[in-house]
Amino acid sequence: MEITVAIDAMGGDHGAHVTVPAALEILRRDPDVNIVLVGLVEVIEAELRAHRAAVSSRLRIHPASEVVTMDDQPALALRSKKDSSMRVAVNLVKSGEANACVSAGNTGALMAISRFVLKMLPGIERPAIASVLPTLNGHTHVLDLGANVDCSAEHLLQFGIMGAMLVAAVDHKERPSVGLLNIGEEDIKGNEVVKRAAELLRASGLNFYGNVEGNDIYKGTTDVVVCDGFVGNVALKASEGLAKMIGELLKQEFKRNLLTKLAGLMATPVMNAFKKRVDPRRYNGASLLGLRGIVVKSHGGADIFAYEHAIETAVEEVRNGVLRRITEQISLLHPEQGAA
Amino acid sequence: MEITVAIDAMGGDHGAHVTVPAALEILRRDPDVNIVLVGLVEVIEAELRAHRAAVSSRLRIHPASEVVTMDDQPALALRSKKDSSMRVAVNLVKSGEANACVSAGNTGALMAISRFVLKMLPGIERPAIASVLPTLNGHTHVLDLGANVDCSAEHLLQFGIMGAMLVAAVDHKERPSVGLLNIGEEDIKGNEVVKRAAELLRASGLNFYGNVEGNDIYKGTTDVVVCDGFVGNVALKASEGLAKMIGELLKQEFKRNLLTKLAGLMATPVMNAFKKRVDPRRYNGASLLGLRGIVVKSHGGADIFAYEHAIETAVEEVRNGVLRRITEQISLLHPEQGAA
Repeated sequence: MEITVAIDAMGGDHGAHVTVPAALEILRRDPDVNIVLVGLVEVIEAELRAHRAAVSSRLRIHPASEVVTMDDQPALALRSKKDSSMRVAVNLVKSGEANACVSAGNTGALMAISRFVLKMLPGIERPAIASVLPTLNGHTHVLDLGANVDCSAEHLLQFGIMGAMLVAAVDHKERPSVGLLNIGEEDIKGNEVVKRAAELLRASGLNFYGNVEGNDIYKGTTDVVVCDGFVGNVALKASEGLAKMIGELLKQEFKRNLLTKLAGLMATPVMNAFKKRVDPRRYNGASLLGLRGIVVKSHGGADIFAYEHAIETAVEEVRNGVLRRITEQISLLHPEQGAA
Repeated sequence: MEITVAIDAMGGDHGAHVTVPAALEILRRDPDVNIVLVGLVEVIEAELRAHRAAVSSRLRIHPASEVVTMDDQPALALRSKKDSSMRVAVNLVKSGEANACVSAGNTGALMAISRFVLKMLPGIERPAIASVLPTLNGHTHVLDLGANVDCSAEHLLQFGIMGAMLVAAVDHKERPSVGLLNIGEEDIKGNEVVKRAAELLRASGLNFYGNVEGNDIYKGTTDVVVCDGFVGNVALKASEGLAKMIGELLKQEFKRNLLTKLAGLMATPVMNAFKKRVDPRRYNGASLLGLRGIVVKSHGGADIFAYEHAIETAVEEVRNGVLRRITEQISLLHPEQGAA
């Protein structure tokens, strides 16, 4: 199966210095993949030359004259930068020239452009951002992580379906378990939207586990955790902040005196093994779900290794038909919409 | 200044085994404090005997024949257990026999009973649970952590005022900074409630910092972080889950082989110093704010050391007039209500 991925080569903190070598590595590793590098031709060509690479039947350059910056307002990026590398990469998905696109650019702009260009899948009202978080026994997929600040129960149901189908596709689990993030496990807990969402999920035919709490994310209680974008974003960023604080405090304690420095030296391999297990680079690549096309958002600060992972995520979603799965599952829910 | 604290001696996972020795330690340490131990007299007396202690002018027992369990529904605990140690302890605050009460029992029941018995302060519509979290440079106070699942902008404003006055009282900061938890720093971010709350906080006369994000909690960006109880509860529990996972994974890595075990042995003092800095026992004691009385909730699993900290929190709130401060600050906002 040939899979073509359009890469927003200019996006992210490091632009082509990261996106181009990551794309080259994927081409080397996965013979099914073709890449379209989208952006300023001279910049991309210079980066290819630096890696002694050149365009080929599997690697082509698609010009785009503008770049969306991290500070651009999403609406402005959408309206006024019609030849941005981000917009053109998404256009290639729309036209069918690419099966997916990857960008490390401005999340809000990528969401706005993707939604405008690709439109929503039938039966899905809102797109959601799904990401993978490490757990004690593996990983879990959480959505929404910030695309929607006010969600209805129906939106949360749709997120559940999209998340389950994503896991079915990329983790090859046929009946992934779905948890609804709440502030207690009992059915009576939570606000009205969440209570109603639990009813809808229970009736959906998904493998609905019930309510989960914040700590269940890292316990890995369910394969998918569903929440509104406000809650998901806060939980994710609080986790990032806590992890950073723990790392910083440990560093301080290991640097306290000669003895602790020696202990730190001894503990280095252990710490490295630990870091590898929770390395966020291994989880890079958030899926923008609910669109009529596959769009993966890389972290803006991603390095080459992390960006490769974002490309691989896009490839897996194409290979395992995540869009078809979502569409089919939604049509089971709304037969009339599926037929439309 | 004499301060009398009513202790729900039966509350929590360990009941009198924790509450009584913690109370004795506080009596020993702080000559201003008197304690009323509330609960089953024979149980309390047995625990006192075990510690070679006895009632005195500073320590008395107040009988209560029932105990609220962790599984009791709040409404049921309120209606049918009128002689519970929890209820009687709160009653002592209402009657003025105690200046504050502390309980490690069922949070929902404590909130329901406190609200019913004590009523709200003028100008405060909803009580909030405030807790302290460690940060890189100290600690920060976060509220609400789960008392309210649906908040209006006015509620968030009131939480801001209560949180600021709590910090003024217990941390002796006259103009504590207040951040509003959101999913981006820009004013345009967030849902409508949060946007409106930012306007109210900006006009409140508080030292309002503006929006903060999840990671700002652990950065210690502001002295107070305000959020609705759903978001706060999820963020707190996600943090607990992540901290637990990190601890577990580190333990696994240190146990991998002989060499890593040796490194673990060497690193033990460092790890202990680190644990001490983030020890949740040092932050035990959540304040139920907005009531006409001081109520502090200890973690159910608290040990003696942790429970002492909860009692100290209650004492500090009394000593530094947190209720008066909240009432005064609210009356600045609503002069008509303050005069009522």
